[in-house]
Amino acid sequence: MQRFINNPELVVDDLIRGFVKANKKLVKVSKHNNRVLKVNNSSEIKKVGIVTGGGSGHEPAFLGYLGDNMVDAVAIGEVFASPPAQAFYDAIIEADHGKGVACLFGNYAGDNMNVKMAIQMADDDGITVKYVVANDDIASSPKETAEKRHGIAGGVFMWKIGGARAALGGSLDEVIQSAQKAVNYTRSICVGLNSCTIPAVGKPNFSIKEGEMEFGIGHHGEAGMKVEKLKSADEIATEMTMAILEDFAFAEKENLVVLLSGLGSTPVMELYILFDTVEKILTERGHHISKVFIGDYVTSLDMNGVSLSIMKVDEELVELLDYSAKAVG
Amino acid sequence: MQRFINNPELVVDDLIRGFVKANKKLVKVSKHNNRVLKVNNSSEIKKVGIVTGGGSGHEPAFLGYLGDNMVDAVAIGEVFASPPAQAFYDAIIEADHGKGVACLFGNYAGDNMNVKMAIQMADDDGITVKYVVANDDIASSPKETAEKRHGIAGGVFMWKIGGARAALGGSLDEVIQSAQKAVNYTRSICVGLNSCTIPAVGKPNFSIKEGEMEFGIGHHGEAGMKVEKLKSADEIATEMTMAILEDFAFAEKENLVVLLSGLGSTPVMELYILFDTVEKILTERGHHISKVFIGDYVTSLDMNGVSLSIMKVDEELVELLDYSAKAVG
Repeated sequence: MQRFINNPELVVDDLIRGFVKANKKLVKVSKHNNRVLKVNNSSEIKKVGIVTGGGSGHEPAFLGYLGDNMVDAVAIGEVFASPPAQAFYDAIIEADHGKGVACLFGNYAGDNMNVKMAIQMADDDGITVKYVVANDDIASSPKETAEKRHGIAGGVFMWKIGGARAALGGSLDEVIQSAQKAVNYTRSICVGLNSCTIPAVGKPNFSIKEGEMEFGIGHHGEAGMKVEKLKSADEIATEMTMAILEDFAFAEKENLVVLLSGLGSTPVMELYILFDTVEKILTERGHHISKVFIGDYVTSLDMNGVSLSIMKVDEELVELLDYSAKAVG
Repeated sequence: MQRFINNPELVVDDLIRGFVKANKKLVKVSKHNNRVLKVNNSSEIKKVGIVTGGGSGHEPAFLGYLGDNMVDAVAIGEVFASPPAQAFYDAIIEADHGKGVACLFGNYAGDNMNVKMAIQMADDDGITVKYVVANDDIASSPKETAEKRHGIAGGVFMWKIGGARAALGGSLDEVIQSAQKAVNYTRSICVGLNSCTIPAVGKPNFSIKEGEMEFGIGHHGEAGMKVEKLKSADEIATEMTMAILEDFAFAEKENLVVLLSGLGSTPVMELYILFDTVEKILTERGHHISKVFIGDYVTSLDMNGVSLSIMKVDEELVELLDYSAKAVG
């Protein structure tokens, strides 16, 4: 395992310490829970609180989306494991300023269970919490059971848009409505070329043979839709884009936002090579790309792969996406 | 080779096409040369022009540092190969607005030769070009022959600071002076855990054995200072930081800026784990870290490794670093 780590059991502690030191003007550790981070001076802000959380190994998600006009508090789990209900609860307490809290998280069994327990705990304290669950990964379940789909990089749009609505003074219901719209309008798909290795395990999580690729792979190595012979970047980008277009059934000329994220060990060069074809296919079909995000937005440790997310935007979503925000991710 | 590419001989063309499409509000291809990019509307700006350039495979460098108040035009070479003199010349032409051009590049034999030929060509046209050569990589030559050292991620500081000085209306000499100060005040060092693979070659550029690491590796796989047993992140970060401190011989309490860049396939998590120790060592010695940059700033295709850059800053450099700029990288 050729990695820059110390004790493999303590990577999350080491990560949090380094992250907080690097961003001390922006974030701090909660006094209640050392696995909860919050934005600085959040207590002075009288707005709907935004909470998220999830397993580690997806950096800059989730903690990197803490920031002004983005996420107010985040619950941090072990590598690829949901934070406990207590951590989500403590994050809710940190983000609550009397206007209610929106918990915007990705659809995984553990997170779902723990967020709901935390909401119950907060409810006992008289704090109103509503939630939106990102389920943008079209490979993780068929369209007919879209509610079972996992949340991946599309969550970035949900946090940005929910965070902006809250910053603009939106009520809890308005924040939930805007964040839910972002989720409804977003579809994502991944392709993996090599596995990732959980540090504490020390060997690859799964295996992709040299010369093969896994289309629709999940962020924790969940089996994809199919294992195929490794194709060219053009072919891969075409297959990914078409899968999203078919699933979404866009109208003819939509205004779209594209996010291409490396999954951990994918060079920046290759993201641009893939984008060239994504753009070609979308514009050939008459769509307009109004914004592009390319980089490491949501990763899976050292997985060699990419995720493509496409969001349809209307005037409201464009305004909220453009609204100024400050976060590391 | 598990990569997202098309024809390995054409990765640079594919990269440029994707990059320009993704950033069309910010950059465009030069009319004179399809391997030269320039910022949009640069012809309306009456300031000293900033030019850089170098081999591809280091994305987001060099093209990602094009932008408002940063670099005005960039010459793009093949993978790990200098752009020809003609490309540097065309970039100079694009960046020239009658106030002279500052060419801020990294110290490699090919770039040095081609930049100097381009400057001669521009001189024949009556365009004054001066240059600064980044030589921040302390592993690439001993202190006594520091002028032979290569330029690596420290170049980012040079572009940011030179670009800000030009945007603030600085003369060519003032831009050169500020950029040279950034170079003089910066030291960098890399550690590699795995090689990179040039797409057109198709096999690893060099080899690092499982369980070993190369301390001081160059951005193209140039041999480092020593091959060692793979150490913990704490030990590696300590060794890197101490190497820079010893080379620089800082005064006791300096104001420092730290940049930790992945070299291509290094997960974000590990950069923060390393930073935790870098910060500890610097602050224990009484230094103050005023700014931190963590991410993929200058890479080497899919190399598994990191570079650490530390810049000493005074009031002038802080002001120029803080000056607003817009660029992808």
